[in-house]
Amino acid sequence: MVAEIICVGTELLLGDILNSNAQFLGQQLAQLGIPHYYQTVVGDNPERLKKVIEIASKRSQLLIFTGGLGPTPDDLTVETIADFFGSPLIEKPEIIEDITQKFTQRGRVMSASNRKQALIPEGAEILTNLTGTAPGIIWKPRGDNLTILTFPGVPAELYQMWRDVAIPYLKNNGWCQGIIQSRTLKFWGIAESTLAEKVAPFLEMKNPTVAPYANHGEVKLRISARAESQELAQQLITPVETQLREIAGLDCYGAHEDTLASVVGALLQKSRATLSVAESCTGGGLGQMLTQIPGSSDYFLGGVIAYGNAVKTSVLGVNLDDLTQQGAVSSIVAQQMALGVKTLLKTNWGLSITGIAGPGGGTATKPVGLVYIGLATPNGQVESLECRFGQTRGRDWIRRGSASSALDLLRRHLS
Amino acid sequence: MVAEIICVGTELLLGDILNSNAQFLGQQLAQLGIPHYYQTVVGDNPERLKKVIEIASKRSQLLIFTGGLGPTPDDLTVETIADFFGSPLIEKPEIIEDITQKFTQRGRVMSASNRKQALIPEGAEILTNLTGTAPGIIWKPRGDNLTILTFPGVPAELYQMWRDVAIPYLKNNGWCQGIIQSRTLKFWGIAESTLAEKVAPFLEMKNPTVAPYANHGEVKLRISARAESQELAQQLITPVETQLREIAGLDCYGAHEDTLASVVGALLQKSRATLSVAESCTGGGLGQMLTQIPGSSDYFLGGVIAYGNAVKTSVLGVNLDDLTQQGAVSSIVAQQMALGVKTLLKTNWGLSITGIAGPGGGTATKPVGLVYIGLATPNGQVESLECRFGQTRGRDWIRRGSASSALDLLRRHLS
Repeated sequence: MVAEIICVGTELLLGDILNSNAQFLGQQLAQLGIPHYYQTVVGDNPERLKKVIEIASKRSQLLIFTGGLGPTPDDLTVETIADFFGSPLIEKPEIIEDITQKFTQRGRVMSASNRKQALIPEGAEILTNLTGTAPGIIWKPRGDNLTILTFPGVPAELYQMWRDVAIPYLKNNGWCQGIIQSRTLKFWGIAESTLAEKVAPFLEMKNPTVAPYANHGEVKLRISARAESQELAQQLITPVETQLREIAGLDCYGAHEDTLASVVGALLQKSRATLSVAESCTGGGLGQMLTQIPGSSDYFLGGVIAYGNAVKTSVLGVNLDDLTQQGAVSSIVAQQMALGVKTLLKTNWGLSITGIAGPGGGTATKPVGLVYIGLATPNGQVESLECRFGQTRGRDWIRRGSASSALDLLRRHLS
Repeated sequence: MVAEIICVGTELLLGDILNSNAQFLGQQLAQLGIPHYYQTVVGDNPERLKKVIEIASKRSQLLIFTGGLGPTPDDLTVETIADFFGSPLIEKPEIIEDITQKFTQRGRVMSASNRKQALIPEGAEILTNLTGTAPGIIWKPRGDNLTILTFPGVPAELYQMWRDVAIPYLKNNGWCQGIIQSRTLKFWGIAESTLAEKVAPFLEMKNPTVAPYANHGEVKLRISARAESQELAQQLITPVETQLREIAGLDCYGAHEDTLASVVGALLQKSRATLSVAESCTGGGLGQMLTQIPGSSDYFLGGVIAYGNAVKTSVLGVNLDDLTQQGAVSSIVAQQMALGVKTLLKTNWGLSITGIAGPGGGTATKPVGLVYIGLATPNGQVESLECRFGQTRGRDWIRRGSASSALDLLRRHLS
């Protein structure tokens, strides 16, 4: 029983978008223990799509399609699949109803072209799309030896439909022979190479395997166990996780779905403390990270985006002499920003960021990538951390890295 | 004369890495005007790779392989291709010499396993790799009706070899019949289906083609022209772009690399005006978007993240009675937030967002997805916009959509 991924979309062939859906599905199939040997990308062209279906349906038993479910004329996936297997398309009133409802919720009226999204092959089940208008299908066009799943190309919709519908379906229909379970530990403040050396023997293990990853300054260790059941896989993973956490200490900030913001949030909630932020070069990115967490209003009261220097002095009360003498990107200004916002918003903690994100604005003494993080503690003390992200990283990287480093500084204080 | 992309690597099937090579090659082929209809990903498995070669060599005349050129036993691309076409492998002394040299430069000795990288099919040319040890090949295994190019999976090496060797080769061998040039128009405030209906006749065009796609509330129209030269392609695109812009009016906010933030930034700069923001449910996301643009400090002074209601009243001067009677998510509070931040930061414009991003906090009268955007204009007038994103979108979508809608409101005022 082998799966195959077929991504439909001329924009993929033209390279207008990166095929992240194939990566997502590949990871998911691996975790479910469903082997897949081929991935195909084909444009919005019925004849070529049919050729792909012909090839894939001979060598694989589970065909997973993404893309081409939209309302526009070039969205042809479902009708082409139906046509290939010689099945008529049936309009499903429940889909019409669902689409109409979604448009109403958004204060819009369903356009005629959306009607085509309600057409699915005879005998196919609806693969419900909770977020978007395009539903997918679950269809066995020729009995039990071939199953077809279709998903929209929009990643967020694919993820939700895969998680809520596809995974349960595949598990209940005997697709998952044994499973591969993974647990990802997350680290901040340690280089991938350094961590890899610290845990070198683990990287040689066969089951579970331990593999390091790094992106945007965050380092991850993925522990993957192959076993008959989730319980048995967990029994393989847990002791390894425990040992890795011991070795890494505070550099390991969490696992799996944890983010620096969610971990900091949990710690603040536990200590019944409140936080405010003062942001210069991140321009709101730190607050944005913190408020990604539902319920963050329990501990995060808000902040000041002090992008211009006038805001630093007038709103946050940064000392003008310090600002002019030390410069906006300095330890003293970072500390005064943190204390200023803590005082203004009456919070227990105040966290600040000021730095040079580039591409312009760097000097010999203060290069692009130099960032100061300020922290004002509940007892009124202030401190700062100097980060040098280097000039090659790029503006987005430096801004994201700055916000993460700020969260990490607070995390270590709260831990 | 059609090309096809074949990416070899089990790590791609497992989703350990994103297939950015396919995107790069897709863009490159489009720019060179070489049509390609299929992309295939296959693991490091000779039998399956042979099946892929068999299929691809029947339907395409230029096969571009990436991956599987390394020194390790699982790198099998070249020998599998040679095997499929029944050609022996020849060890090329110049490759051995090149690899040895590269190791010496790095103060290392060539390992035995690297020897296999010097083996290429009889009659194949070497596709020189300046940076890495793995060379590619240019090979016509059965005369002029099939050309094979192989590249390493390492993106940097692929890019250099493609630029320095492949492009000149393809141009000199008559592969580049004209070029394909694309231009993408970007829209906000109109549904994909609605726009598609407005421009329906254009979607039927053959050259240039016009294709719509949508992501996170943003709709795009891609105009792609095939022509002998960039100039001629531009001549096909320009009139269509003009007509589409006329039909769409202000719903079209820009093209190509434009973002709502960059367009708003340019308009503010043009009018020498300054902006500040007051954010509740977006928690800094609007400021973060604005400051993604280098040089945004020319017009964006900063803002207040008024996540807690106390901050709305104490820092932004929102009227407590209005807040308690109308609620934090209301038109009046949005307006007072906008006016408050404009006054506090002494800017020409003040832009605010207050809404319910969910998943919690929704009521019958104020459901999740209800967002009010406030705008204070240079002459001191205030207005607000009500958005209903629906309850199914999810927190991140609603927050991103809110920030984009706020930028769009300001954009329409500045336009």
